[in-house]
Amino acid sequence: MASKESMQTFLGRISLSVMQENPNKLSFDTSALMAMEQRYRANFINSLSGFKAIQLIGTQDSEGRSNLAIFNSVVHLGANPALLGFILRPDSVERHTWSNIQNNGHYTLNHIDESIYRQAHQCAAKYPKAQSEFEATGLQPLFRPDFLAPFVAESPIQLGLVFRDRLPIAINGTSLIIGEIVQVHCAKDCLAPDGYVNLEKAGSLAGSALDGYHKTRLLERLPYARA
Amino acid sequence: MASKESMQTFLGRISLSVMQENPNKLSFDTSALMAMEQRYRANFINSLSGFKAIQLIGTQDSEGRSNLAIFNSVVHLGANPALLGFILRPDSVERHTWSNIQNNGHYTLNHIDESIYRQAHQCAAKYPKAQSEFEATGLQPLFRPDFLAPFVAESPIQLGLVFRDRLPIAINGTSLIIGEIVQVHCAKDCLAPDGYVNLEKAGSLAGSALDGYHKTRLLERLPYARA
Repeated sequence: MASKESMQTFLGRISLSVMQENPNKLSFDTSALMAMEQRYRANFINSLSGFKAIQLIGTQDSEGRSNLAIFNSVVHLGANPALLGFILRPDSVERHTWSNIQNNGHYTLNHIDESIYRQAHQCAAKYPKAQSEFEATGLQPLFRPDFLAPFVAESPIQLGLVFRDRLPIAINGTSLIIGEIVQVHCAKDCLAPDGYVNLEKAGSLAGSALDGYHKTRLLERLPYARA
Repeated sequence: MASKESMQTFLGRISLSVMQENPNKLSFDTSALMAMEQRYRANFINSLSGFKAIQLIGTQDSEGRSNLAIFNSVVHLGANPALLGFILRPDSVERHTWSNIQNNGHYTLNHIDESIYRQAHQCAAKYPKAQSEFEATGLQPLFRPDFLAPFVAESPIQLGLVFRDRLPIAINGTSLIIGEIVQVHCAKDCLAPDGYVNLEKAGSLAGSALDGYHKTRLLERLPYARA
Protein backbone atom coordinates (compact mmCIF):
# COMPACT_ATOMS: atom_id res chain seq x y z
CA MET A 1 0.00 0.00 0.00
CA ALA A 2 2.56 2.54 1.18
CA SER A 3 4.01 3.27 -2.22
CA LYS A 4 0.92 2.85 -4.38
CA GLU A 5 -1.86 4.28 -2.29
CA SER A 6 -1.90 7.44 -0.20
CA MET A 7 -2.64 7.30 3.51
CA GLN A 8 -5.84 9.24 2.92
CA THR A 9 -7.07 6.66 0.44
CA PHE A 10 -6.04 3.87 2.76
CA LEU A 11 -7.79 5.41 5.75
CA GLY A 12 -10.87 5.99 3.61
CA ARG A 13 -10.89 2.39 2.46
CA ILE A 14 -10.85 1.06 6.02
CA SER A 15 -12.94 3.86 7.48
CA LEU A 16 -15.58 1.47 8.77
CA SER A 17 -12.95 0.02 11.05
CA VAL A 18 -11.27 3.27 12.04
CA MET A 19 -13.20 4.79 14.91
CA GLN A 20 -12.91 8.55 15.11
CA GLU A 21 -13.11 9.86 18.65
CA ASN A 22 -12.12 13.36 17.63
CA PRO A 23 -10.80 14.93 14.44
CA ASN A 24 -7.19 14.93 15.66
CA LYS A 25 -7.07 11.30 16.72
CA LEU A 26 -7.07 7.97 14.92
CA SER A 27 -8.38 4.75 16.37
CA PHE A 28 -7.84 1.33 14.83
CA ASP A 29 -9.51 -1.95 15.68
CA THR A 30 -8.55 -5.48 14.65
CA SER A 31 -10.30 -5.16 11.28
CA ALA A 32 -8.36 -1.99 10.52
CA LEU A 33 -5.08 -3.69 11.45
CA MET A 34 -5.94 -6.68 9.26
CA ALA A 35 -6.83 -4.43 6.33
CA MET A 36 -3.37 -2.89 6.26
CA GLU A 37 -0.94 -3.84 3.51
CA GLN A 38 1.80 -6.11 4.91
CA ARG A 39 4.69 -3.64 4.87
CA TYR A 40 2.49 -0.81 6.18
CA ARG A 41 1.32 -3.02 9.04
CA ALA A 42 4.89 -4.11 9.82
CA ASN A 43 5.91 -0.46 10.21
CA PHE A 44 2.79 0.37 12.20
CA ILE A 45 2.81 -2.53 14.66
CA ASN A 46 6.58 -2.40 15.10
CA SER A 47 6.17 1.22 16.24
CA LEU A 48 3.66 0.49 18.97
CA SER A 49 5.85 -1.27 21.51
CA GLY A 50 7.70 2.00 22.11
CA PHE A 51 11.41 2.77 21.97
CA LYS A 52 13.62 -0.26 21.66
CA ALA A 53 16.98 -1.48 22.79
CA ILE A 54 19.14 -2.00 19.72
CA GLN A 55 22.11 -4.31 19.80
CA LEU A 56 24.48 -6.15 17.53
CA ILE A 57 24.70 -9.85 18.32
CA GLY A 58 28.07 -11.38 17.52
CA THR A 59 28.55 -15.13 17.04
CA GLN A 60 30.97 -17.57 15.48
CA ASP A 61 30.34 -20.78 13.53
CA SER A 62 32.12 -24.10 13.86
CA GLU A 63 34.61 -23.06 11.20
CA GLY A 64 35.52 -19.88 13.04
CA ARG A 65 33.60 -17.55 10.75
CA SER A 66 32.13 -14.50 12.49
CA ASN A 67 28.52 -13.36 12.18
CA LEU A 68 26.95 -10.09 13.26
CA ALA A 69 23.20 -9.36 13.31
CA ILE A 70 21.14 -6.43 14.55
CA PHE A 71 18.32 -7.08 17.02
CA ASN A 72 15.76 -4.74 18.56
CA SER A 73 14.05 -7.13 20.96
CA VAL A 74 16.49 -7.53 23.83
CA VAL A 75 14.68 -7.54 27.16
CA HIS A 76 15.82 -7.71 30.79
CA LEU A 77 14.73 -10.93 32.51
CA GLY A 78 16.49 -10.78 35.84
CA ALA A 79 19.53 -9.44 37.70
CA ASN A 80 20.50 -12.53 39.76
CA PRO A 81 21.40 -14.49 37.76
CA ALA A 82 21.91 -11.78 35.14
CA LEU A 83 19.59 -12.85 32.33
CA LEU A 84 18.66 -11.21 29.05
CA GLY A 85 16.23 -12.48 26.43
CA PHE A 86 15.73 -11.70 22.77
CA ILE A 87 13.13 -12.74 20.21
CA LEU A 88 14.26 -14.95 17.37
CA ARG A 89 12.47 -15.29 14.03
CA PRO A 90 14.07 -18.44 12.68
CA ASP A 91 13.00 -17.90 9.09
CA SER A 92 15.22 -14.90 8.53
CA VAL A 93 18.81 -13.72 8.46
CA GLU A 94 18.77 -14.38 12.18
CA ARG A 95 19.13 -18.09 11.48
CA HIS A 96 22.93 -17.72 11.31
CA THR A 97 22.89 -16.22 14.79
CA TRP A 98 20.81 -19.06 16.22
CA SER A 99 22.79 -21.74 14.43
CA ASN A 100 26.03 -20.31 15.83
CA ILE A 101 24.64 -19.99 19.37
CA GLN A 102 23.69 -23.65 19.22
CA ASN A 103 27.20 -24.43 18.03
CA ASN A 104 29.19 -23.15 21.02
CA GLY A 105 26.73 -21.44 23.42
CA HIS A 106 28.47 -18.07 23.32
CA TYR A 107 27.24 -14.77 21.94
CA THR A 108 27.89 -11.07 22.44
CA LEU A 109 25.49 -8.14 22.72
CA ASN A 110 26.98 -4.84 21.62
CA HIS A 111 25.35 -1.45 22.08
CA ILE A 112 25.14 0.84 19.07
CA ASP A 113 26.20 4.49 19.14
CA GLU A 114 26.09 7.36 16.66
CA SER A 115 29.41 6.38 15.10
CA ILE A 116 28.28 2.90 14.01
CA TYR A 117 24.48 2.89 13.59
CA ARG A 118 24.62 2.92 9.79
CA GLN A 119 26.98 -0.03 9.73
CA ALA A 120 24.85 -1.76 12.37
CA HIS A 121 21.70 -1.30 10.28
CA GLN A 122 23.47 -2.73 7.24
CA CYS A 123 24.00 -5.99 9.18
CA ALA A 124 20.28 -6.67 8.59
CA ALA A 125 21.01 -7.37 4.92
CA LYS A 126 20.90 -10.99 3.80
CA TYR A 127 24.57 -11.82 3.36
CA PRO A 128 25.55 -15.38 2.50
CA LYS A 129 26.86 -17.42 5.42
CA ALA A 130 30.39 -17.36 4.08
CA GLN A 131 30.49 -13.56 4.19
CA SER A 132 31.06 -11.98 7.59
CA GLU A 133 29.04 -8.85 8.36
CA PHE A 134 32.21 -7.53 9.99
CA GLU A 135 33.96 -7.57 6.62
CA ALA A 136 30.90 -6.30 4.78
CA THR A 137 30.43 -3.30 7.07
CA GLY A 138 33.95 -2.56 8.27
CA LEU A 139 33.12 -3.06 11.93
CA GLN A 140 36.02 -4.57 13.89
CA PRO A 141 35.70 -7.95 15.59
CA LEU A 142 37.31 -8.13 19.02
CA PHE A 143 38.08 -11.52 20.55
CA ARG A 144 38.66 -12.05 24.24
CA PRO A 145 40.26 -15.03 26.01
CA ASP A 146 38.04 -18.04 26.66
CA PHE A 147 35.09 -16.56 24.79
CA LEU A 148 33.94 -18.07 21.50
CA ALA A 149 32.15 -15.09 19.95
CA PRO A 150 33.38 -11.75 18.61
CA PHE A 151 32.64 -8.46 20.35
CA VAL A 152 32.27 -5.28 18.29
CA ALA A 153 35.37 -3.23 19.09
CA GLU A 154 33.65 0.10 18.33
CA SER A 155 30.70 -0.61 20.63
CA PRO A 156 30.50 1.47 23.83
CA ILE A 157 28.96 -1.32 25.96
CA GLN A 158 29.87 -4.92 25.20
CA LEU A 159 28.32 -7.96 26.87
CA GLY A 160 29.34 -11.59 26.68
CA LEU A 161 26.53 -14.12 27.20
CA VAL A 162 26.19 -17.86 27.58
CA PHE A 163 23.04 -19.50 26.20
CA ARG A 164 20.70 -20.84 28.90
CA ASP A 165 17.32 -21.68 27.38
CA ARG A 166 15.04 -21.36 24.36
CA LEU A 167 11.30 -20.95 24.83
CA PRO A 168 9.23 -21.58 21.70
CA ILE A 169 6.40 -19.06 21.29
CA ALA A 170 3.81 -21.32 19.71
CA ILE A 171 1.34 -18.60 18.75
CA ASN A 172 3.55 -17.22 15.97
CA GLY A 173 6.59 -19.49 15.66
CA THR A 174 9.11 -17.13 17.22
CA SER A 175 11.26 -18.02 20.24
CA LEU A 176 12.57 -16.31 23.34
CA ILE A 177 16.32 -16.96 23.56
CA ILE A 178 17.64 -16.63 27.10
CA GLY A 179 21.28 -16.04 27.99
CA GLU A 180 23.28 -15.22 31.09
CA ILE A 181 25.62 -12.25 31.11
CA VAL A 182 29.11 -13.46 31.98
CA GLN A 183 31.16 -10.48 30.79
CA VAL A 184 30.51 -6.72 30.79
CA HIS A 185 32.83 -4.16 29.23
CA CYS A 186 32.15 -0.42 29.40
CA ALA A 187 33.89 2.90 29.87
CA LYS A 188 34.78 3.63 33.49
CA ASP A 189 33.20 7.08 33.45
CA CYS A 190 29.80 5.61 32.54
CA LEU A 191 29.39 3.76 35.83
CA ALA A 192 27.53 5.73 38.51
CA PRO A 193 28.27 5.17 42.23
CA ASP A 194 25.00 3.22 42.69
CA GLY A 195 25.63 0.76 39.86
CA TYR A 196 23.59 2.61 37.19
CA VAL A 197 25.33 2.51 33.84
CA ASN A 198 24.85 5.84 32.10
CA LEU A 199 23.79 4.72 28.61
CA GLU A 200 23.47 8.29 27.45
CA LYS A 201 27.04 9.12 28.40
CA ALA A 202 28.12 5.89 26.71
CA GLY A 203 26.30 7.06 23.58
CA SER A 204 23.94 4.08 23.25
CA LEU A 205 21.09 4.78 20.86
CA ALA A 206 17.41 3.86 21.12
CA GLY A 207 15.50 2.40 18.17
CA SER A 208 12.00 2.90 16.82
CA ALA A 209 10.03 0.53 14.60
CA LEU A 210 12.36 -1.19 12.13
CA ASP A 211 14.58 1.65 11.02
CA GLY A 212 14.61 4.65 13.40
CA TYR A 213 17.76 5.56 15.36
CA HIS A 214 17.54 8.06 18.21
CA LYS A 215 19.84 9.85 20.62
CA THR A 216 18.46 10.48 24.08
CA ARG A 217 18.37 13.30 26.63
CA LEU A 218 17.82 12.42 30.28
CA LEU A 219 14.89 14.17 31.90
CA GLU A 220 15.43 12.69 35.32
CA ARG A 221 16.25 9.65 37.39
CA LEU A 222 13.44 9.33 39.91
CA PRO A 223 13.71 8.02 43.47
CA TYR A 224 12.27 4.64 44.49
CA ALA A 225 8.46 4.99 44.56
CA ARG A 226 6.71 4.53 47.91
CA ALA A 227 2.99 4.41 48.66
CA MET B 1 26.68 -1.26 49.24
CA ALA B 2 25.77 1.82 47.25
CA SER B 3 25.07 4.01 50.26
CA LYS B 4 27.67 2.64 52.67
CA GLU B 5 30.65 1.93 50.46
CA SER B 6 32.16 4.04 47.74
CA MET B 7 32.49 2.70 44.21
CA GLN B 8 36.29 2.86 44.57
CA THR B 9 36.18 0.66 47.66
CA PHE B 10 33.75 -1.70 45.94
CA LEU B 11 35.86 -1.99 42.83
CA GLY B 12 38.94 -2.57 44.98
CA ARG B 13 37.22 -5.34 46.89
CA ILE B 14 36.32 -7.23 43.71
CA SER B 15 39.45 -6.29 41.80
CA LEU B 16 40.42 -9.89 41.24
CA SER B 17 37.28 -10.30 39.16
CA VAL B 18 37.43 -6.97 37.37
CA MET B 19 39.68 -7.31 34.36
CA GLN B 20 41.31 -4.06 33.31
CA GLU B 21 41.90 -3.86 29.59
CA ASN B 22 42.89 -0.21 29.74
CA PRO B 23 42.71 2.49 32.40
CA ASN B 24 39.52 4.04 30.99
CA LYS B 25 37.54 0.82 30.76
CA LEU B 26 36.01 -1.56 33.24
CA SER B 27 35.41 -5.24 32.62
CA PHE B 28 33.33 -7.47 34.86
CA ASP B 29 33.05 -11.23 34.87
CA THR B 30 30.52 -13.47 36.61
CA SER B 31 32.41 -13.33 39.91
CA ALA B 32 32.38 -9.54 39.83
CA LEU B 33 28.62 -9.51 39.11
CA MET B 34 27.99 -11.96 41.95
CA ALA B 35 30.07 -9.87 44.36
CA MET B 36 27.86 -6.83 43.86
CA GLU B 37 25.46 -5.78 46.61
CA GLN B 38 21.89 -6.64 45.58
CA ARG B 39 20.64 -3.10 44.90
CA TYR B 40 23.86 -2.13 43.13
CA ARG B 41 23.59 -5.21 40.92
CA ALA B 42 19.93 -4.49 40.17
CA ASN B 43 20.86 -1.02 38.91
CA PHE B 44 23.84 -2.34 36.99
CA ILE B 45 22.21 -5.31 35.24
CA ASN B 46 19.00 -3.41 34.54
CA SER B 47 21.10 -0.85 32.64
CA LEU B 48 22.75 -3.33 30.32
CA SER B 49 19.80 -4.27 28.10
CA GLY B 50 19.82 -0.73 26.68
CA PHE B 51 17.01 1.79 26.40
CA LYS B 52 13.60 0.42 27.27
CA ALA B 53 10.01 0.84 26.23
CA ILE B 54 8.08 2.18 29.20
CA GLN B 55 4.35 1.71 29.45
CA LEU B 56 1.53 1.88 31.93
CA ILE B 57 -0.57 -1.27 31.97
CA GLY B 58 -4.20 -0.68 32.90
CA THR B 59 -6.46 -3.46 34.17
CA GLN B 60 -9.68 -3.94 36.09
CA ASP B 61 -10.61 -6.51 38.73
CA SER B 62 -13.85 -8.48 39.05
CA GLU B 63 -15.33 -5.76 41.25
CA GLY B 64 -14.63 -3.06 38.70
CA ARG B 65 -11.64 -1.55 40.50
CA SER B 66 -8.95 -0.12 38.23
CA ASN B 67 -5.26 -0.90 38.50
CA LEU B 68 -2.32 0.78 36.82
CA ALA B 69 1.27 -0.49 36.83
CA ILE B 70 4.45 0.65 35.11
CA PHE B 71 6.40 -1.87 33.01
CA ASN B 72 9.70 -1.55 31.16
CA SER B 73 9.83 -4.94 29.46
CA VAL B 74 7.33 -4.69 26.61
CA VAL B 75 8.68 -6.36 23.48
CA HIS B 76 7.40 -6.75 19.91
CA LEU B 77 6.63 -10.37 19.02
CA GLY B 78 4.97 -10.09 15.64
CA ALA B 79 2.90 -7.88 13.35
CA ASN B 80 0.41 -10.43 11.98
CA PRO B 81 -1.24 -11.15 14.31
CA ALA B 82 -0.17 -8.06 16.23
CA LEU B 83 1.47 -9.49 19.33
CA LEU B 84 3.31 -7.85 22.21
CA GLY B 85 4.91 -9.53 25.19
CA PHE B 86 5.97 -8.31 28.61
CA ILE B 87 7.86 -9.93 31.49
CA LEU B 88 5.93 -10.57 34.68
CA ARG B 89 7.52 -10.98 38.09
CA PRO B 90 4.64 -12.51 40.02
CA ASP B 91 6.06 -11.79 43.46
CA SER B 92 5.68 -8.02 43.18
CA VAL B 93 3.18 -5.23 42.78
CA GLU B 94 2.64 -6.63 39.31
CA ARG B 95 0.51 -9.41 40.82
CA HIS B 96 -2.56 -7.15 40.66
CA THR B 97 -1.99 -6.70 36.93
CA TRP B 98 -1.72 -10.44 36.31
CA SER B 99 -4.66 -11.30 38.53
CA ASN B 100 -6.81 -8.79 36.64
CA ILE B 101 -5.69 -10.01 33.23
CA GLN B 102 -6.69 -13.52 34.25
CA ASN B 103 -10.03 -12.13 35.36
CA ASN B 104 -11.27 -10.74 32.05
CA GLY B 105 -8.45 -11.09 29.50
CA HIS B 106 -8.24 -7.37 28.72
CA TYR B 107 -5.44 -4.92 29.40
CA THR B 108 -4.18 -1.63 28.04
CA LEU B 109 -0.66 -0.44 27.26
CA ASN B 110 -0.23 3.31 27.49
CA HIS B 111 2.86 5.23 26.40
CA ILE B 112 4.39 7.70 28.83
CA ASP B 113 5.28 11.28 27.87
CA GLU B 114 6.97 14.18 29.65
CA SER B 115 3.70 15.38 31.19
CA ILE B 116 3.02 12.14 33.10
CA TYR B 117 6.30 10.33 33.74
CA ARG B 118 6.44 11.27 37.42
CA GLN B 119 2.92 10.00 37.98
CA ALA B 120 3.73 6.90 35.94
CA HIS B 121 6.82 6.17 38.05
CA GLN B 122 4.75 6.54 41.22
CA CYS B 123 2.55 3.65 40.03
CA ALA B 124 5.45 1.35 40.99
CA ALA B 125 4.70 1.96 44.67
CA LYS B 126 3.05 -0.88 46.58
CA TYR B 127 -0.50 0.38 46.97
CA PRO B 128 -3.09 -1.92 48.56
CA LYS B 129 -5.43 -3.63 46.08
CA ALA B 130 -8.37 -1.50 47.17
CA GLN B 131 -6.56 1.68 46.19
CA SER B 132 -6.46 2.55 42.50
CA GLU B 133 -3.20 3.97 41.19
CA PHE B 134 -5.37 6.31 39.10
CA GLU B 135 -6.70 7.92 42.28
CA ALA B 136 -3.31 7.84 43.97
CA THR B 137 -1.53 9.58 41.10
CA GLY B 138 -4.27 11.72 39.57
CA LEU B 139 -4.04 10.06 36.15
CA GLN B 140 -7.41 9.81 34.42
CA PRO B 141 -8.94 6.44 33.53
CA LEU B 142 -10.63 6.33 30.13
CA PHE B 143 -13.10 3.54 29.37
CA ARG B 144 -14.10 2.56 25.85
CA PRO B 145 -17.07 0.47 24.70
CA ASP B 146 -16.70 -3.31 24.90
CA PHE B 147 -13.32 -3.11 26.55
CA LEU B 148 -12.86 -4.22 30.16
CA ALA B 149 -9.74 -2.28 31.10
CA PRO B 150 -9.03 1.42 31.58
CA PHE B 151 -6.85 3.41 29.19
CA VAL B 152 -4.80 6.34 30.52
CA ALA B 153 -6.49 9.43 29.09
CA GLU B 154 -3.30 11.54 29.19
CA SER B 155 -1.24 8.95 27.30
CA PRO B 156 -0.23 9.84 23.72
CA ILE B 157 -0.42 6.27 22.38
CA GLN B 158 -2.97 3.89 23.87
CA LEU B 159 -3.26 0.20 23.03
CA GLY B 160 -5.97 -2.29 23.95
CA LEU B 161 -4.85 -5.92 24.18
CA VAL B 162 -6.44 -9.30 24.67
CA PHE B 163 -4.46 -11.93 26.56
CA ARG B 164 -3.29 -14.84 24.38
CA ASP B 165 -0.70 -16.89 26.28
CA ARG B 166 1.61 -17.09 29.26
CA LEU B 167 5.03 -18.72 28.95
CA PRO B 168 6.68 -19.59 32.25
CA ILE B 169 10.41 -18.81 32.27
CA ALA B 170 11.61 -21.66 34.49
CA ILE B 171 15.14 -20.39 34.95
CA ASN B 172 14.11 -17.52 37.23
CA GLY B 173 10.37 -17.81 37.86
CA THR B 174 9.29 -14.92 35.63
CA SER B 175 6.80 -15.26 32.75
CA LEU B 176 6.34 -13.89 29.28
CA ILE B 177 2.77 -12.59 28.99
CA ILE B 178 1.58 -12.45 25.38
CA GLY B 179 -1.31 -10.33 24.16
CA GLU B 180 -2.82 -9.34 20.84
CA ILE B 181 -3.35 -5.68 20.01
CA VAL B 182 -7.04 -5.14 19.22
CA GLN B 183 -7.22 -1.35 19.59
CA VAL B 184 -4.78 1.46 18.79
CA HIS B 185 -5.41 5.12 19.60
CA CYS B 186 -2.96 7.85 18.63
CA ALA B 187 -2.81 11.40 17.33
CA LYS B 188 -3.45 11.65 13.59
CA ASP B 189 -0.33 13.75 12.95
CA CYS B 190 1.92 11.01 14.37
CA LEU B 191 1.13 8.53 11.60
CA ALA B 192 3.56 8.63 8.66
CA PRO B 193 2.41 7.69 5.14
CA ASP B 194 4.23 4.33 5.34
CA GLY B 195 2.63 3.23 8.61
CA TYR B 196 5.49 4.34 10.90
CA VAL B 197 4.14 5.89 14.08
CA ASN B 198 6.34 8.82 15.07
CA LEU B 199 6.90 8.13 18.75
CA GLU B 200 9.04 11.21 19.11
CA LYS B 201 6.30 13.48 17.79
CA ALA B 202 3.86 11.70 20.10
CA GLY B 203 6.20 12.47 22.99
CA SER B 204 6.78 8.87 24.11
CA LEU B 205 9.75 8.57 26.45
CA ALA B 206 12.43 5.90 26.64
CA GLY B 207 13.52 4.39 29.95
CA SER B 208 16.89 3.35 31.36
CA ALA B 209 17.54 0.88 34.17
CA LEU B 210 14.80 1.16 36.81
CA ASP B 211 14.38 4.90 37.12
CA GLY B 212 15.71 6.88 34.14
CA TYR B 213 13.34 8.80 31.82
CA HIS B 214 14.61 10.13 28.50
CA LYS B 215 13.38 12.24 25.61
CA THR B 216 14.68 11.28 22.20
CA ARG B 217 16.02 13.00 19.09
CA LEU B 218 15.81 11.19 15.76
CA LEU B 219 19.11 10.81 13.99
CA GLU B 220 17.69 9.08 10.96
CA ARG B 221 15.34 6.49 9.56
CA LEU B 222 17.44 4.24 7.36
CA PRO B 223 16.35 2.48 4.19
CA TYR B 224 15.85 -1.29 4.03
CA ALA B 225 19.28 -2.92 4.13
CA ARG B 226 20.35 -4.93 1.06
CA ALA B 227 23.45 -7.05 0.61
